Amino acid sequence: MKLLSSPASPFGRKVRMTIAIKGLSDRVEAVAVDTGKGDPALNAANPLGRIPALILENGDTIHDSHVICEYLDTLGSGPILIPRSGPERWRTLTLGSLGDGLIEQALLQVYEGRYRPENMRVDSWVARLQAKIDRSLDYLEGAPPAWHDHPDYGHLTVAAALGYMDFRHAGRWRTGHPGLVAWLDRFSAAVPAFNATTPGA
Amino acid sequence: MKLLSSPASPFGRKVRMTIAIKGLSDRVEAVAVDTGKGDPALNAANPLGRIPALILENGDTIHDSHVICEYLDTLGSGPILIPRSGPERWRTLTLGSLGDGLIEQALLQVYEGRYRPENMRVDSWVARLQAKIDRSLDYLEGAPPAWHDHPDYGHLTVAAALGYMDFRHAGRWRTGHPGLVAWLDRFSAAVPAFNATTPGA
Repeated sequence: MKLLSSPASPFGRKVRMTIAIKGLSDRVEAVAVDTGKGDPALNAANPLGRIPALILENGDTIHDSHVICEYLDTLGSGPILIPRSGPERWRTLTLGSLGDGLIEQALLQVYEGRYRPENMRVDSWVARLQAKIDRSLDYLEGAPPAWHDHPDYGHLTVAAALGYMDFRHAGRWRTGHPGLVAWLDRFSAAVPAFNATTPGA
Repeated sequence: MKLLSSPASPFGRKVRMTIAIKGLSDRVEAVAVDTGKGDPALNAANPLGRIPALILENGDTIHDSHVICEYLDTLGSGPILIPRSGPERWRTLTLGSLGDGLIEQALLQVYEGRYRPENMRVDSWVARLQAKIDRSLDYLEGAPPAWHDHPDYGHLTVAAALGYMDFRHAGRWRTGHPGLVAWLDRFSAAVPAFNATTPGA
């Protein structure tokens, strides 16, 4: 299989942690693509031009990161990352949705700088995104999501979101959220692939 | 259960079609929320302040629309909307991801008008989003996704995306995509809930 992604992508980082945890490193070849310029191979695999995209042996493509992680979870060994049924499944996937939402707001804030001239940036839009981020961080700070034996897909997604905000937002999320800072420390101790996939490392 | 959504939301429309197809209308109460102004009940259910959000009898919340649709698919009667395993599952979910991606680009184009003064809108950003939409439409036009007995979750998501572009983009997607126009006609004949959930109808 081929994973089209970029070292800086938080969605790609979720998938790379999943590959490591599930013991699939030998079966997935990483292919770096530049979504800023656009990449013909990526656009052929996913017409949205979005990463990550997983190309299977038979040529089929799977996206987005949620679907890829679920697919890989059925393939590899190691702990189950998405419970197969019951309330735990919906709790895990809803936490994943919260982490993905955090990433999406944080990305749009980065895009505000990347794709607009400086005098065309709108503070009220960035503040609107930040309000969503702040509410979500406060919610997580109030009840940092615990795990039993091993972090699951929901935890991976939240960690990828916080890691992205360390990378692109200078770690400003850490202020006022000591419980979540401690949570990320516990997570990185439990999932060595987190530090191994730090952007720029 | 309570579904927090808005009549105009394409993600909410996916869920409302799912509720109808799965025979769950009597078990889900629709609650209209205004995400533009912000809604305290919504923010309490989903700190991202995003719709749709499904509040269960026990007070737990499930989001996003993908997760809600999968949850409802395990509850109701009627056709299976997300195959439980195998290649069909990944094909359905990847088509759903394509439809969600179309919706997300189309929404960002609408937000460009809604959340920015007219002189702060950036044409190159809107064009970047449109290129993703156009590639995806051309891909779907080249191979409109067929169904066996009944449309599945992937088809519902693409239909919600096209319906949103009818509603907010004056149906411009129809030009140059006659195969997809015919596809949406077949879909709306197979899924009466599609026309029943037309925004503004």
